[in-house]
Amino acid sequence: MMFKPVSEQLELIKRGIVDLIPEDELIRKLESSRRTNQPLRVKLGCDPSRPDLHLGHSVVLKKLAQFQRLGHEAILVVGDFTGMIGDPSGRNKTRPPLSLEETRINGQSYFSQASRILDKDRTRIVYNSDWLGTMTFSDVVKLASRYTVARMLERDDFEKRFKAQEPISVHELLYPLAQAMDSVALQADVELGGTDQRFNLLVGRDIQKEYGLEPQVIITLPILEGTDGHQKMSKSLDNYVGITDPPNEMFGKIMSIPDDLICRYFELATDVSAADLAAIRAQLADVKVNPSHLKRRLAREIITLYHKTEAARQAEEAFDRVFKHKDVPEDTPVFETHENEMAVTRLLTEAGLVASGNEARRQIGQGAVSVNNVRVTDDRMVLTIDGEVVIKVGKRRFVRVRKVSG
Amino acid sequence: MMFKPVSEQLELIKRGIVDLIPEDELIRKLESSRRTNQPLRVKLGCDPSRPDLHLGHSVVLKKLAQFQRLGHEAILVVGDFTGMIGDPSGRNKTRPPLSLEETRINGQSYFSQASRILDKDRTRIVYNSDWLGTMTFSDVVKLASRYTVARMLERDDFEKRFKAQEPISVHELLYPLAQAMDSVALQADVELGGTDQRFNLLVGRDIQKEYGLEPQVIITLPILEGTDGHQKMSKSLDNYVGITDPPNEMFGKIMSIPDDLICRYFELATDVSAADLAAIRAQLADVKVNPSHLKRRLAREIITLYHKTEAARQAEEAFDRVFKHKDVPEDTPVFETHENEMAVTRLLTEAGLVASGNEARRQIGQGAVSVNNVRVTDDRMVLTIDGEVVIKVGKRRFVRVRKVSG
Repeated sequence: MMFKPVSEQLELIKRGIVDLIPEDELIRKLESSRRTNQPLRVKLGCDPSRPDLHLGHSVVLKKLAQFQRLGHEAILVVGDFTGMIGDPSGRNKTRPPLSLEETRINGQSYFSQASRILDKDRTRIVYNSDWLGTMTFSDVVKLASRYTVARMLERDDFEKRFKAQEPISVHELLYPLAQAMDSVALQADVELGGTDQRFNLLVGRDIQKEYGLEPQVIITLPILEGTDGHQKMSKSLDNYVGITDPPNEMFGKIMSIPDDLICRYFELATDVSAADLAAIRAQLADVKVNPSHLKRRLAREIITLYHKTEAARQAEEAFDRVFKHKDVPEDTPVFETHENEMAVTRLLTEAGLVASGNEARRQIGQGAVSVNNVRVTDDRMVLTIDGEVVIKVGKRRFVRVRKVSG
Repeated sequence: MMFKPVSEQLELIKRGIVDLIPEDELIRKLESSRRTNQPLRVKLGCDPSRPDLHLGHSVVLKKLAQFQRLGHEAILVVGDFTGMIGDPSGRNKTRPPLSLEETRINGQSYFSQASRILDKDRTRIVYNSDWLGTMTFSDVVKLASRYTVARMLERDDFEKRFKAQEPISVHELLYPLAQAMDSVALQADVELGGTDQRFNLLVGRDIQKEYGLEPQVIITLPILEGTDGHQKMSKSLDNYVGITDPPNEMFGKIMSIPDDLICRYFELATDVSAADLAAIRAQLADVKVNPSHLKRRLAREIITLYHKTEAARQAEEAFDRVFKHKDVPEDTPVFETHENEMAVTRLLTEAGLVASGNEARRQIGQGAVSVNNVRVTDDRMVLTIDGEVVIKVGKRRFVRVRKVSG
């Protein structure tokens, strides 16, 4: 027998999730899979316009990997259909449509990053333009006839916007239906997503029924907070830990999270056992324990998932050199210049430590900039570059400025 | 100069209409048409699933014919795209999808009937599946992004249904957009429709703008009441006067309308001049005038539009023979039978005077059936058929039953 007993599978699947709708159908699907020795098809959608994966994505990817370990089939659906449309209203200039080539490159990049979590050889990657792209207006009308406007407007964000009289374009009602068609085309048994995807996943269930298929079971997972501890983790908010971030960067970022997130990160972003998690929870409740010890362990656990164990140890050492002994980290980037003198604001900008002269002045004003361990107090300061100068902005941004002859 | 002065055209166009949105744009379009000697493109949509035209349709068709006489281009858009989809929810079994062939046959039938009103040689007939049928899902998303859900739900019937929590399927929001795309594809300058089409025509205006075109001017016309005087004229309510009805049938149907509709029918369904209309209105207000004289004139006017003048006179004479002199009309159909005896209920059914045995009994119960001018009082009556028997149901349904040997 290929598959574990249903109760054992179920116990693992239910760990760490928010919704499982409906449980009895999942049990029936698992039973039938075991009886016929057929894996379940487990779908996860991914957005090709945001190809950089972070720990937020890892929460669902880890659940998908779990299904793989249980013997089921993982299907990554790259949503290139909508990616290639971009923002059709043309109002959002920051979301230009992707070319077919770009969606393929981003899809492959997503896939190769996800492979740090998934079993690469047993993951299917598909592009939904393959079926959505062949649908005609008449197919769309038929699809759209299967769902009412009122139910669509029950979706949380639609409801809020509709009540607040904020515009919702008609095409926005088509996107959940398009995503639902993915489940029809793939005959998905299970679909995974963050809790913010709950509505869309349920539409998939309904539309599968309308197309005469057995409806998928939906499983949602918590949304991980970013390193700021407030908002959901996202690249655009710069509060993320990328799963391809180098070990030292991961270490520093994880050490910066608020203490009250430690447990949640252990739960959602690592593979520690339930017993370990309980022990960690107990330690955190103990005032005698310094939370930073647990944070160090968290950082090591996460780095070990995406790099080698050795890398975690090295990252911790590098971190200690900078933060414990005020040393400059080993991998500090080098900025080379031909000039003998440079205004410190220009230097900060050109070396990429700040985004603009204004930000440079602000950072200096806040006392966040130092040159060779001496705080800069005057934003008009001109630096003589002789040999090597180490500049630091904030706690973790360093650059070594080096004069080159030429 | 090909075109009449703008003020003259405008005066004619504005006659008998409800909405003209906006008038200043129509004036500009007429001016430019006259200056460049280019006709305006005037669009009228028609539904190929209801190919039988009646006086209700004639109201907009007459306005379209007027544009033709002013030198403009008439475009009949056969909505075969939606016709071929039918009722996509599959809930309405009475609206099966039409085949391409059926839409073409119905379109041609519509065209040939409409040619009793329009100048056939100067009417373009187009099928909207030609452009809507080539649209992809991605084209539909782009189209749907140009309109908000809230504005769509402002449409009268949507608003009522939404508030009453009656289901509106998402595809229903796509139909006004599809119709609007017709205006884009045809670059319509003007679109005509009944007042119930006002919203859809306005969507056409908006969508043309979104696609970078000069928006169409919309003109709506009143909805004609049916011969019952209550509901809008429609074949399914059996309160219609078909524009291909034979003269005698037209005459009888028109004579059956309530007196308070006489003026409205003159206004919307004939070509009498404004002066004549004023005179008719005055006569109707005069208690000394018998309204049936005006109704006779109305019937003659309408018949003359769709048949020969001679036909109107003959229809009136036939009508008089039946109704004034209690004669049997000359064109009463003949029903031939081999039998010597027949139950009167069966005879009524087989001769097509009633739809069922039940209706036969009901009509007899109401005293509406007579045989050779003698009222039938017993619904179990068996008729001996010897030579010719004339049967009458209600006021206008006759049949001559004739025994044939064999």
